[in-house]
Amino acid sequence: MLQEAFKRYYGILVSSSRHEPATSNVKTTGGNSLGYMDSLSVNLSSPCEGRPHVGMTESYQLEVSKDGAFLSSESVWGILRGLETFVQTVTLAADGSELIIKESSTTDSPRYPHRGLLLDTSRHYLPMSSILRTLDAMEASKMNVFHWHIVDDQAFPYQSEKFPDLSYKGAYDPRTHVYTRVDIENIIEYARLRGIRVIPEFDTPGHTRSWGQGREGLLTTCYKYNNQGEVVPDGSYGPIDPTKPETFDFLEQFFEEAILLFPDEYIHLGGDEVNFECWKSNPAINDYMNANNLTGDYAGLEEYYVQTLVDKLKKFNVSNIVWQEVFDNGVKIDPNTVVQVWIESDSKNEMSRVTAEGHPVLLSSCWYLSSIASGGDWKKFYSCDPDEFPGTAEQKKLVQGGEACMWGEYVDWSNVESRVWPRACAIAEKLWTSPEAFKTDSKFKSDGASSYDIKDVEARLEEHRCRLLRRGIQAQPPNEAGFCPGEHW
Amino acid sequence: MLQEAFKRYYGILVSSSRHEPATSNVKTTGGNSLGYMDSLSVNLSSPCEGRPHVGMTESYQLEVSKDGAFLSSESVWGILRGLETFVQTVTLAADGSELIIKESSTTDSPRYPHRGLLLDTSRHYLPMSSILRTLDAMEASKMNVFHWHIVDDQAFPYQSEKFPDLSYKGAYDPRTHVYTRVDIENIIEYARLRGIRVIPEFDTPGHTRSWGQGREGLLTTCYKYNNQGEVVPDGSYGPIDPTKPETFDFLEQFFEEAILLFPDEYIHLGGDEVNFECWKSNPAINDYMNANNLTGDYAGLEEYYVQTLVDKLKKFNVSNIVWQEVFDNGVKIDPNTVVQVWIESDSKNEMSRVTAEGHPVLLSSCWYLSSIASGGDWKKFYSCDPDEFPGTAEQKKLVQGGEACMWGEYVDWSNVESRVWPRACAIAEKLWTSPEAFKTDSKFKSDGASSYDIKDVEARLEEHRCRLLRRGIQAQPPNEAGFCPGEHW
Repeated sequence: MLQEAFKRYYGILVSSSRHEPATSNVKTTGGNSLGYMDSLSVNLSSPCEGRPHVGMTESYQLEVSKDGAFLSSESVWGILRGLETFVQTVTLAADGSELIIKESSTTDSPRYPHRGLLLDTSRHYLPMSSILRTLDAMEASKMNVFHWHIVDDQAFPYQSEKFPDLSYKGAYDPRTHVYTRVDIENIIEYARLRGIRVIPEFDTPGHTRSWGQGREGLLTTCYKYNNQGEVVPDGSYGPIDPTKPETFDFLEQFFEEAILLFPDEYIHLGGDEVNFECWKSNPAINDYMNANNLTGDYAGLEEYYVQTLVDKLKKFNVSNIVWQEVFDNGVKIDPNTVVQVWIESDSKNEMSRVTAEGHPVLLSSCWYLSSIASGGDWKKFYSCDPDEFPGTAEQKKLVQGGEACMWGEYVDWSNVESRVWPRACAIAEKLWTSPEAFKTDSKFKSDGASSYDIKDVEARLEEHRCRLLRRGIQAQPPNEAGFCPGEHW
Repeated sequence: MLQEAFKRYYGILVSSSRHEPATSNVKTTGGNSLGYMDSLSVNLSSPCEGRPHVGMTESYQLEVSKDGAFLSSESVWGILRGLETFVQTVTLAADGSELIIKESSTTDSPRYPHRGLLLDTSRHYLPMSSILRTLDAMEASKMNVFHWHIVDDQAFPYQSEKFPDLSYKGAYDPRTHVYTRVDIENIIEYARLRGIRVIPEFDTPGHTRSWGQGREGLLTTCYKYNNQGEVVPDGSYGPIDPTKPETFDFLEQFFEEAILLFPDEYIHLGGDEVNFECWKSNPAINDYMNANNLTGDYAGLEEYYVQTLVDKLKKFNVSNIVWQEVFDNGVKIDPNTVVQVWIESDSKNEMSRVTAEGHPVLLSSCWYLSSIASGGDWKKFYSCDPDEFPGTAEQKKLVQGGEACMWGEYVDWSNVESRVWPRACAIAEKLWTSPEAFKTDSKFKSDGASSYDIKDVEARLEEHRCRLLRRGIQAQPPNEAGFCPGEHW
């Protein structure tokens, strides 16, 4: 893993020396030369871990002085983050003749352990190249969780080996618009080498229209009254039908395959936006509810579905992330189940409620990249802070971080890179850097933990955007005017 | 010109046959085969014109029957538009084995003569490739005016041969972020072959900060009171200084060069958003105004500037387009000067006022592509109509069309294609197709001239977006979900 990382970052350094010196934001002061550096010493003080995992150590120390450059960490993940910092610290001399690094002593660690990005590959398909470049940009921005919202109502690109009909009938094009086992393994490996966890989301029982095309009987048949006043199927389908025992047999087999394929300890079970209208219309569903003391309680039926699914999956030794509705509906979820808050209204109180019950929590409600506005709209992302909700210190400790969400409506390979980057970097900085860090920097206002000078953020983001461009990410300009030194086309 | 067009469109046809059949929106009905077509007969009934020009004929007739395919027009521009329609009418058979065209008889002509797109190359530079692909996409969407907002406050990428310091000191990078004479000639020629006029805009007297860097004394020096209560320069500069005679000598020489380089009959003189604060602060400006019966009348000074410039340029036999402020400030402009309406508030009444005075008018206020919103925001562009303002039939005749404006804040090569396309196509359709056309199509509502079924527009836009992608334009998805048949990466 480290050899791969050395190769990758050495390539970035070498290509930096082929670019123009920065003329705008990055200033390399003259100063006195302390000598030439011909190596970076890397000291990994604990055994190498194979896979990025929840709570992994990412802290590192980087010392640059006349005695040389030294990067050390207890973990391979810390080394990865430190290498990123190291190459970001190297700049090209004003005359373009050599690379320069200043004396520095850095002790760095992330504010939150979970710094995620959600991509949705159902509303529009994203080719492998888009996903791999996303992982490159995540590494450059020290993000560590790729939340893969892989299927949804619109399309089912996940190719299951046990149930090939799901993608054969549910993908936009089963020949081209699918993710094969090999594709997925490649994405997981590419992410692993960058210290990025891949958490798949198979959202049920709602958002499953595309599942129904390759799996007859899985979805609830919706009914209507016909002209004769009889209740008849209306031709459409609703959420997964939780009243049939074969539903859970299928789900157990389906999830077993997915859990074996995706090595992360967590799987995202979705659970958002379940529409009850179809359940209400279906006579068999209502018969079942009457027979099980659930008459009229559709949220109870949803709870029953999620509870049964969660219980079935326990044997696979996997932990769960769920959207906030699962918590809101009172499902008895394990204490370590992570609740992802996404509904914008009342989200601060939701953070309070979830953590008051002792659940780890992720913030996403203010970080929807699909919400776009004219101007530098990354500022609204930057102004949001996961710790800002009413709660005790104990509750704050349950905040795992958050995720930038790039829902797939109106986005595919043609615009996903420029839509996500560098807007997601504003979120990445909030998730990595503690507001305390700003206090010690004289450039930042010191009148409060979360105060900052937006002009400085602007400049950092402009600089980082140019860095992403140099690494082949089609990141859009974050600010009103400007250019990247040495950019060419 | 036609040989070039035949080659270009033949290439598009051939590449269509290498794509997947459309499976979503375009339906090729089975029907009876009427035979095989091996050629398209093109009949140009008047001599070929060399350059696209204001009021050029673009109407054409296209007949496809068992006797063959016949395209005819009085003008080469009509042939170009007809070729575009012809290749759009050809589809791939469902089994991918052959190209299919249906029997049809089309008589087509544009609703408005001026169907423009503005690109701004000052806030961010756009490389040649971005501009050329924009021209390709404009041709595919039957747009015919490229309004090139080439310089502004932020940067001066136009390389003048008489005044090389302007770009040498005013461009982001004078080596790479400039348009040379050869670049500009290539763009004009590329556009000409596609029946697209190139109208440059050199916006004065405001929006000229970048001019000042390479031309000392051109801009107004702004003054402030110092601690001793004396009036002293504050280090900043305002609009062009109209009180110095050398200003107009420079402008005459500058514009002469530009007018010789850009062959269009029109040049855009800008004239928007002139800030009076700097003029107010400058003692010499106020002395001049006092001496010329303009005391306190800064709009009058602006009028004097524009009037003098327009008079100086008369000898070059060029007509003008101006932003609406020039009209609003009462400058005595020629009757054929075109006024471009851009201020959103009160724009319908502005259209009335301009046309009541007998001026040709262009609508842009509702077509700012820089204004972005979540969702399919092309719908707001589509709902806007240039003829919908209070006025007589005579006034309506003065509506020349309109322009989609892609201002350069937050946009450069990385996102300009996906930001403009296919959103600008919604505007292009409003400018080409008369609402009357919808009346005769049973798919459209018939309850009024401008009523239409947005679902049909959605489908056409989805289809056209896929067409743009196949031609190498990085157009973004206009709708919530979907894919382009045969797309690959």
